[in-house]
Amino acid sequence: MHFAALLLTLAGQPPPDSTRTLMPVPASFRFGEGHLRVDTAFRVRVTTGADGAPDARLSRAVARFLRRAELVTGLILNRGTGSPTLAIRVAGPGQAVQSPTEVERYTLTIAPDRAELTAPTTVGALRGLETILQLLEPDARGFRLPAVRIEDQPRFPWRGLLIDVARHWEPVEVIKRQLDGMAAVKLNVFHWHLSEDQGFRVESRLYPRLHQMGSDGLYYTQEQIREVVAYARDRGIRVVPEFDVPGHSTSWFVGYPAYASAPGPYTIERRFGVFAPTFDPTREATYQFLDGFIGEMATLFPDPYWHIGGDEVSGTQWRENRRIQAFMRARNLPDNEALQAHFNRRLSAILTRHGKRMVGWDEILHPGLPKTTVVQSWRGQDALRDGARDGYLGILSAGWYLDHMQTTEVHYLVDPVPAGSPLTPAEAARVLGGEACMWAEHITPESIDSRIWPRLAAIAERLWSPREVRDVADMYRRLAVMRVRLEAVGLGHESHTARMTRRLAAGRNPAPLQELLELMEPVRFGERGSRQSLTQLTPLVFAIDAARPDPPAHWGYRSLAAAVLTGAGDGRRRLDSAFARWRMLPGILSEFAEVPLARDVLPAAQALARVTEIGIEALTPPAGPARAEWARARLAALDSLARPQGLLRITVIPAVRMLIEGGGR
Amino acid sequence: MHFAALLLTLAGQPPPDSTRTLMPVPASFRFGEGHLRVDTAFRVRVTTGADGAPDARLSRAVARFLRRAELVTGLILNRGTGSPTLAIRVAGPGQAVQSPTEVERYTLTIAPDRAELTAPTTVGALRGLETILQLLEPDARGFRLPAVRIEDQPRFPWRGLLIDVARHWEPVEVIKRQLDGMAAVKLNVFHWHLSEDQGFRVESRLYPRLHQMGSDGLYYTQEQIREVVAYARDRGIRVVPEFDVPGHSTSWFVGYPAYASAPGPYTIERRFGVFAPTFDPTREATYQFLDGFIGEMATLFPDPYWHIGGDEVSGTQWRENRRIQAFMRARNLPDNEALQAHFNRRLSAILTRHGKRMVGWDEILHPGLPKTTVVQSWRGQDALRDGARDGYLGILSAGWYLDHMQTTEVHYLVDPVPAGSPLTPAEAARVLGGEACMWAEHITPESIDSRIWPRLAAIAERLWSPREVRDVADMYRRLAVMRVRLEAVGLGHESHTARMTRRLAAGRNPAPLQELLELMEPVRFGERGSRQSLTQLTPLVFAIDAARPDPPAHWGYRSLAAAVLTGAGDGRRRLDSAFARWRMLPGILSEFAEVPLARDVLPAAQALARVTEIGIEALTPPAGPARAEWARARLAALDSLARPQGLLRITVIPAVRMLIEGGGR
Repeated sequence: MHFAALLLTLAGQPPPDSTRTLMPVPASFRFGEGHLRVDTAFRVRVTTGADGAPDARLSRAVARFLRRAELVTGLILNRGTGSPTLAIRVAGPGQAVQSPTEVERYTLTIAPDRAELTAPTTVGALRGLETILQLLEPDARGFRLPAVRIEDQPRFPWRGLLIDVARHWEPVEVIKRQLDGMAAVKLNVFHWHLSEDQGFRVESRLYPRLHQMGSDGLYYTQEQIREVVAYARDRGIRVVPEFDVPGHSTSWFVGYPAYASAPGPYTIERRFGVFAPTFDPTREATYQFLDGFIGEMATLFPDPYWHIGGDEVSGTQWRENRRIQAFMRARNLPDNEALQAHFNRRLSAILTRHGKRMVGWDEILHPGLPKTTVVQSWRGQDALRDGARDGYLGILSAGWYLDHMQTTEVHYLVDPVPAGSPLTPAEAARVLGGEACMWAEHITPESIDSRIWPRLAAIAERLWSPREVRDVADMYRRLAVMRVRLEAVGLGHESHTARMTRRLAAGRNPAPLQELLELMEPVRFGERGSRQSLTQLTPLVFAIDAARPDPPAHWGYRSLAAAVLTGAGDGRRRLDSAFARWRMLPGILSEFAEVPLARDVLPAAQALARVTEIGIEALTPPAGPARAEWARARLAALDSLARPQGLLRITVIPAVRMLIEGGGR
Repeated sequence: MHFAALLLTLAGQPPPDSTRTLMPVPASFRFGEGHLRVDTAFRVRVTTGADGAPDARLSRAVARFLRRAELVTGLILNRGTGSPTLAIRVAGPGQAVQSPTEVERYTLTIAPDRAELTAPTTVGALRGLETILQLLEPDARGFRLPAVRIEDQPRFPWRGLLIDVARHWEPVEVIKRQLDGMAAVKLNVFHWHLSEDQGFRVESRLYPRLHQMGSDGLYYTQEQIREVVAYARDRGIRVVPEFDVPGHSTSWFVGYPAYASAPGPYTIERRFGVFAPTFDPTREATYQFLDGFIGEMATLFPDPYWHIGGDEVSGTQWRENRRIQAFMRARNLPDNEALQAHFNRRLSAILTRHGKRMVGWDEILHPGLPKTTVVQSWRGQDALRDGARDGYLGILSAGWYLDHMQTTEVHYLVDPVPAGSPLTPAEAARVLGGEACMWAEHITPESIDSRIWPRLAAIAERLWSPREVRDVADMYRRLAVMRVRLEAVGLGHESHTARMTRRLAAGRNPAPLQELLELMEPVRFGERGSRQSLTQLTPLVFAIDAARPDPPAHWGYRSLAAAVLTGAGDGRRRLDSAFARWRMLPGILSEFAEVPLARDVLPAAQALARVTEIGIEALTPPAGPARAEWARARLAALDSLARPQGLLRITVIPAVRMLIEGGGR
């Protein structure tokens, strides 16, 4: 429960070995005495390389840095030459095409009279500039940077976010603001999931029926792809495209049915799940087609890696196609897995010709898979471990599915190479890092920010910071600051629930509805799928869409419960006042019984009222022998109330549970 | 004070001659008995013209309509063929290039079994589709449309919004969402103010130094211009470009100093005001340059009108240039106004050659101005009246400056041809309508939505609805619904104060700061200019930027005061509770004394506390002879407190004034 840290948080004091509000926590840091003032005299000078050749990417980054500092301070900073307040020294621009071997380290020294940021590469300097922005703090006189010495570098070289833009479309401006958020937490891979059964999202000039017939008109032009790739590079972020084959590929076959394993015709899939349409791996025409396609796309995506998907191949079309069955017998391919391995070897050779290394989901792990392949583990950590032992590079996604609607804490404690890992150092070095995954069954441009942020910041910290950085209370303390910083780069997570609630309220006073939804979280991914019939066309405007995963109330009320248990501050008064309001919500919200979308919250409001009654009891629990029985019964009741209430879960149950377990002092 | 309407509002009942929540109010409407259900069977059929030729613009509009209805209802509506729930009959597509003579009328009949929308043109149908969306309402069974017969058409053919993208830049996505908002309130002209002393915002291939040197890299590509023009046309909105000449033109001269009236060199102006740089109207080269420029731009902007600006010519450069003075003497041009008129006649001839009619600010009214010119009145209504008498077409902007930070009520009651206007019917017909103006000294992409919306909806109603529609209480009642509808089309005004307040709070609890700022409004345009030294480079992240003009609290507390005075509902309890909180705000907010940007609110919090004390007194005022003296003293105190408190004004003072004037029953 980290009570000590919690109480310090509540008292507004950072813990003694303070990480301040840095996120991710640097590899090494030591705060000193005093501060450097940031006022209108604040001036930056950049020195690059031995020959001092200017690096345009670095110049743009410094311009953005200055503007962001201005938006925090309200000051116009000094653009003139002269003795700098912050000297930035960068040895060279770094890799022409960023790869996992790019150097990202930097050293930052801030003294009361001067700051210095040094880095071997522009990307290292980018990381350091984000750290400086996080250090900027107000005081009575204005703004300042604390004296500090930071030597920082990432724990893992591959720190990514996957966004599925195929099941639901996301326009370019949505992608750009995610890239801004990623840069703020030092992530470096944008994994762009660009094709699916439900949509093909890139313009192909070679095979124009791909986007013309497979996208409902919702695709990126080649110019937009270039624009996003350049935008990402400016922020030290690689763009790894994924075109999922041989399964998850219905949308390809709408325009090009000849490459499927059954005749067609095909239409864009509107439902979600695993579907039969699959590339025909037995025909040369398929490889010629993919060769042409990859060749065209390779001109758009400079990254040395290329994601082939490879997950969830249904196998139905292969089993039902006699020609394919004959091919398998002739080649001695005993099963669909072997046939997919054959397909992957062919694909790997094509990718190599185009200068790309193959990445795929863990299903592709199969004897004979080229050792140059990177395996992305999504079904658990086993594949990551097994792959590393077998000599494959690996990245982890299991445990980091943002669509699962889990708490930040759960994601934060997942580690690709945890303490006590059985891997040898050489094997562990094959674990390149990981990626959070934002799958798109249940998201739209309106809700995506609230599903990614701020939880992704904690995953980013896991991938950047030393393994030992895993104090959950300290993470939540810093996250409360980080989420406002992320809002300032343009993300909409903090406005989300209020905005969607106003619409749900359909002209009635939204305030009590909003209060309720801020105490709720969406049910888990699978729970929603089994409770609500959804397709790609379903408007996602329900109460569950207005709620957000791990809302601030979750940790906030856990902290408050901790304060009550230790008698700190005015915790008791604040909790009493919250309980008093929560009790009244079912009555206040009853007017929404006649508002179709809003009335979905009423069961949750009733359940919250029952949780509240238990909470009130827990503040003056029975004493003596009745005590244990009482606690057992109330905890069982909470277990039951913790189950889905309609499409919502009550996020404050862990706080009430603490009151019971902590003894209700 | 419209007490009756107010009380009905408070009781949740629309007034008897109900405008429901329609905004703008239709020209003619009669609600009937019963409702048409909107459920998954809801189906639309479109019939066009005698030959039934499909109109792609109409098809896209219907697709958007269906999607928006789905986002309100949470339903997937029926896209199949078959007997329609809503039959749309449109005689023809309308003008190939929309002009002020485009027909915008429509007829809408909703019966319990069927709805029909008929219009002579696609634009008329667009207006009717917006009305249908506004009629959609929830009930216990789902959603429905009330039985109604509407015959609607606009009062004025020119109903616009000017956005200045030159003093501060606005990216394409910001413009697009304003167009969506404009379409929702049936506006039809987007006046795009594209050049200024502080920036030149369009790519010119003929004169590339215009955007290359005059824009800081912040300009629209020609492709983006075409995209915005097409986006606007799809919504029945004309795009009238303004390139302000001969003054307000410093940014042109950065790349092309030769066309100025003094040698240069020039740099982009960062301050705001009226500056000396002015085109040289005496040289043929100037007209050749403008002819070339207009010819190039005419390919991007199909609208038959072209705005030349023409306002605030400083005259300094003309007075100081001996060659220009000689030219004036030789031509018998007695003063700068005459020289500008000479320039305007030349310009008008060039525009005519390019198929454009000239529009300009009221300074251009001068003997000899071609009668084809449209005069835009900004300095008052006199020019509009004088111009109409002299045979000029006119549009009104005086009274509709959104940057002045006035209340919706003030803007709503401005009328281009008020009751009792001295104009003859023929003269009045020359008044084409008007435009609200969003000048950009004090706005950014982050704040623009909150400065335009929802106030623009009330101005749109003035321009569309019959003159007699001017019940302020009913307008505010409908605006409270309209502002959430406008949020749903993608505008950020409702999230604005909360979002910016979180940043101002710099890691502290933003709730009390937000509560205060929602009771405040920004000081008037001129008041800010005289109190804060601002340039184009100043980051607009202050408390004044977080506040919004005419926030919901303004009318909300006036309504509450009305309820208290008449003893309606639980008004008294709600007001007591508000006063109790407001009194505590200075104490609660004192922790922000050390937060540089947030502490700007402290004087306003103190002043609000004093207003609150007066409000509390007003609830139990002295009786008898002391009463009048007490009221006089308190009203005088409120007058003083109504002045700017720092950069804020207290928006609830009118409500407290009502309590005193109403007698504090």
